[in-house]
Amino acid sequence: MEAERRSIFDKIFFPESVAIVGISRTYTGLGGQFFLRNLQRAGYPGRIFLINPTAGEINGIPAYSSLAALPESVDLAIICVPAQFVPSVLNECRLKGILNVHILTSGFKELGTPEGIRLEKEIEQIALKGRINVIGPNCMGPYAPASRLMLWGQIPASSGSLAFLSQSGTLTQRITEHAHFTGIGLSKAVSFGNAAGLDSTEYLEYLADDPQTKVIGLYLESVRNGRRLLNLARHINPVKPLVIWKGGETPSGAGAVASHTGTLSGQDQIWESGLRQAGVTRVRSLDEVVGTAMAFLYLPPARGRRLFILGGGGGNSVYYADICMGMGLQTPSLTGKTREKLTALVPAVGSFARNPVDAWRSFHDPDFLGKILEPVFEDQGLDMIIVDRLIPRMTYAQPEEKDTTHEAIEYLRKNRSRKPLAVVVDGNGEDPVLATKAARLRQRFCRAGVPAYASLPLASRALAHLAAYYEKK
Amino acid sequence: MEAERRSIFDKIFFPESVAIVGISRTYTGLGGQFFLRNLQRAGYPGRIFLINPTAGEINGIPAYSSLAALPESVDLAIICVPAQFVPSVLNECRLKGILNVHILTSGFKELGTPEGIRLEKEIEQIALKGRINVIGPNCMGPYAPASRLMLWGQIPASSGSLAFLSQSGTLTQRITEHAHFTGIGLSKAVSFGNAAGLDSTEYLEYLADDPQTKVIGLYLESVRNGRRLLNLARHINPVKPLVIWKGGETPSGAGAVASHTGTLSGQDQIWESGLRQAGVTRVRSLDEVVGTAMAFLYLPPARGRRLFILGGGGGNSVYYADICMGMGLQTPSLTGKTREKLTALVPAVGSFARNPVDAWRSFHDPDFLGKILEPVFEDQGLDMIIVDRLIPRMTYAQPEEKDTTHEAIEYLRKNRSRKPLAVVVDGNGEDPVLATKAARLRQRFCRAGVPAYASLPLASRALAHLAAYYEKK
Repeated sequence: MEAERRSIFDKIFFPESVAIVGISRTYTGLGGQFFLRNLQRAGYPGRIFLINPTAGEINGIPAYSSLAALPESVDLAIICVPAQFVPSVLNECRLKGILNVHILTSGFKELGTPEGIRLEKEIEQIALKGRINVIGPNCMGPYAPASRLMLWGQIPASSGSLAFLSQSGTLTQRITEHAHFTGIGLSKAVSFGNAAGLDSTEYLEYLADDPQTKVIGLYLESVRNGRRLLNLARHINPVKPLVIWKGGETPSGAGAVASHTGTLSGQDQIWESGLRQAGVTRVRSLDEVVGTAMAFLYLPPARGRRLFILGGGGGNSVYYADICMGMGLQTPSLTGKTREKLTALVPAVGSFARNPVDAWRSFHDPDFLGKILEPVFEDQGLDMIIVDRLIPRMTYAQPEEKDTTHEAIEYLRKNRSRKPLAVVVDGNGEDPVLATKAARLRQRFCRAGVPAYASLPLASRALAHLAAYYEKK
Repeated sequence: MEAERRSIFDKIFFPESVAIVGISRTYTGLGGQFFLRNLQRAGYPGRIFLINPTAGEINGIPAYSSLAALPESVDLAIICVPAQFVPSVLNECRLKGILNVHILTSGFKELGTPEGIRLEKEIEQIALKGRINVIGPNCMGPYAPASRLMLWGQIPASSGSLAFLSQSGTLTQRITEHAHFTGIGLSKAVSFGNAAGLDSTEYLEYLADDPQTKVIGLYLESVRNGRRLLNLARHINPVKPLVIWKGGETPSGAGAVASHTGTLSGQDQIWESGLRQAGVTRVRSLDEVVGTAMAFLYLPPARGRRLFILGGGGGNSVYYADICMGMGLQTPSLTGKTREKLTALVPAVGSFARNPVDAWRSFHDPDFLGKILEPVFEDQGLDMIIVDRLIPRMTYAQPEEKDTTHEAIEYLRKNRSRKPLAVVVDGNGEDPVLATKAARLRQRFCRAGVPAYASLPLASRALAHLAAYYEKK
């Protein structure tokens, strides 16, 4: 991206001034008041201008009757007026020299009506004419914790190295929850809806050279220029892993795409082979986007697919092996020194050289945990590790022990460059108290840089993606 | 099962007296003290005898030096002594005329050692000789809330109509959490480990005629007599749906089976075709066992696979359709009266006749919910319904509304015989507070008889299983 274009694009995420066009006098849910409230909550340090033709002032802030009346141009305009007025407001932006415009309003191509399609065409034409970066319409817009441009989501939110591009506002909002509570943080996020102006390829081009961004997650329903997307992906992915979720992959989903963002999703087979050739990671849920991104952000390269599992409870071992195999990982039998050393610690290992290894003691004895993992870290025949960290459940006969989570985390942190290692803390069972406990426990691991997952399928899938990425690289 | 055998078998779950053989003086986790404590907590009304060769008394209860010293025989003995002593204790049981024996102890065939294999053979022979029902070894044993025989798990726990048979103690314990917190309750559960005595087929035969049991869940790693199991399944399944999870389905899992319960799991393809022919429902996780059982227990028969989804947020609609298609359901476009009526309520429906329908208002306006669902209940072209019940998240711009969950539940309850309907309440995002809130909300639905699921994949998979069951029937 050329320097001038880039410096304009920067202001989408780091605007020094924002205009909210079409803000009502009172809060009514999603709309101008919602954005204003969030910018204030976030302590956004830039200038905020409100546009309302008649209000005079809103929440104690003077409101301008139109964009033309503003004392200056702004770095970012947010349009919340009804669909039929959007083209004229966009024209006002053009006349005012505003180069970045987020359109929240829906009611365009996604409706499938002649009027909606016509209005969206108009937007496209005005954007071209004014060289305006249009984000949307029908979307939640840009998000950047570093500049406190938090129009929605968890506030305050921590900055991080994950960028997320999405045609779904809901999913973009949801990812801010994950990013906040796991502590992985976001560099930038954009919900760009119908993509009448900027499309995924433009954002990608920008993120390719964004120093804050190390991993890029995408939720796409359609792409205007598929070939360009795949070229970009091939170029960016080896440096910054791309984690793509493609919605509308089934005929029904494709129908829903048409009515969601007014575009047609390409045939899934074409996508599948294109994405595979580009080497990008393809996922199929938001949890998988986050979980996989976390693995890329926190873990060292994977040298293979041979997984060691430290678990608890014999029944788990059996289906754990099933699940990991299903994800394309292997759980080889233990050999050599690992076998010898683990047999000394867990006698049952001796008979079958089994993997998963069951050793409840490791959950409350960090020294023991270290003794189990040390030979595994050294073993050239094992590439990655999952530690299934059972939490005390009412239902188990666990003796009460002091909480040594802190020490366990310290040990895992210190050793985290040695091999990719993921922790599983499963709070399933519909016990509300346990659900909280498990989420808090995962949070402690994640925030210390040790990725923790809510289930073995999620953890093993993230590791499988990691392995696949480094195989292709 | 003949009457005499049956009346003995009954006492596994409804024992009037229990002996705990091998109970230490103090609590050390899993063992005799654990079982005693749980029986007491549960208010088990029968007689409890403790056997310890030297203690004299334990927790204020007199302890007998051996089974021979007991004043009476007992309905159920629970053996917790080390493996090498198990055969002699089992012999004592035989001499005392005890016909039901649960062996907690591990260290038998599952070790793969000649000694372990020999000891297990001995158990088998003594059991045969004494016509003893041996549960185990290497297992958590029987569980029946109705008789307060709650040796583990959630205490108190509610009785219900789901029976669960499992070779994994961990999973059997875990299911008591689900059963308790969702309120579906258990009729009986057995963790039967190595199955040296009773195998799944015997339990199944018993449950076939158990009036308390309406649905049977199974976690199996191996079956001694596969043909018999499939015959039984074919016979029972049309009356009481069987939901089978077969562990050890991959080569790695099979290896872990050998070291978990000391048996070899059959080749997966053979299982797959056998189970399919028997018409049983095959699942691959504990959540799926519970979720599917809940659908069988609470929902009316499914007449087809055409699903209507009421959701919130456009992005959701797209991937919701993808997920449901992936599970083998259809989300047809709306037609006729349904389309007309829904267009009047949600104008966007008109343009694309879309399904999923997005209508946030339905989450806080039960009358509106009823108006949306009424034509769907009437529509002969729609077979089942998912209501995606978003909960207020910090991240969304939802206006504050009064909680109308109670009214929504009442409406759904009243209409629950009309069409299979599942609710989704997704609390993902790693927010510990939200996780609790979502679990509590699901609980309210479930306990009112409206199945609620933590994710769309879980809900749609349960409905797909329901549809498949009634297609075959």
